[in-house]
Amino acid sequence: MTVHLDHILIPSRNREAAARKLAEILGVTWAPARVGPFTAVYVNDGLTIDFDEWTQEFPKGHYCFRVSEPAFRIILEHIGHGVSQPSARPG
Amino acid sequence: MTVHLDHILIPSRNREAAARKLAEILGVTWAPARVGPFTAVYVNDGLTIDFDEWTQEFPKGHYCFRVSEPAFRIILEHIGHGVSQPSARPG
Repeated sequence: MTVHLDHILIPSRNREAAARKLAEILGVTWAPARVGPFTAVYVNDGLTIDFDEWTQEFPKGHYCFRVSEPAFRIILEHIGHGVSQPSARPG
Repeated sequence: MTVHLDHILIPSRNREAAARKLAEILGVTWAPARVGPFTAVYVNDGLTIDFDEWTQEFPKGHYCFRVSEPAFRIILEHIGHGVSQPSARPG
């Protein structure tokens, strides 16, 4: 049988800002919270990242994405010069 | 372009116990830490969950998996009668 990750919840200080930033970097769509308290980033057809908004402290997470080399170059352009480049290499 | 989640890090109290338990429930393979400090659960061909071991407090996470209805029944059997059944429904 095949198991797929359908969605995960990631805490943030500002759920809309977090979702917008990740979606812009990855070049995917996102949506403000409608039904629940989360903002959704549609990473691909099968996976959604739901940003929650926490006032309490939370530890940093580690989430590694895999993209093609052309997509990686586009993502670097999205990040631009104002943000330090990620250490990840294209897969 | 298509973006895939390649791996994520999940904190745990006991990385080997956490990886073994999740792998047994999902019916997938896992491996003890070799190179790094993580135990890997191979959810599918494209996604690995790496369990880290933390002594400090950490908040609970939310990770929702999607499986077929037959796979869901098998997973319920894996969970057995000693563990409360998840609220998830087959997708």
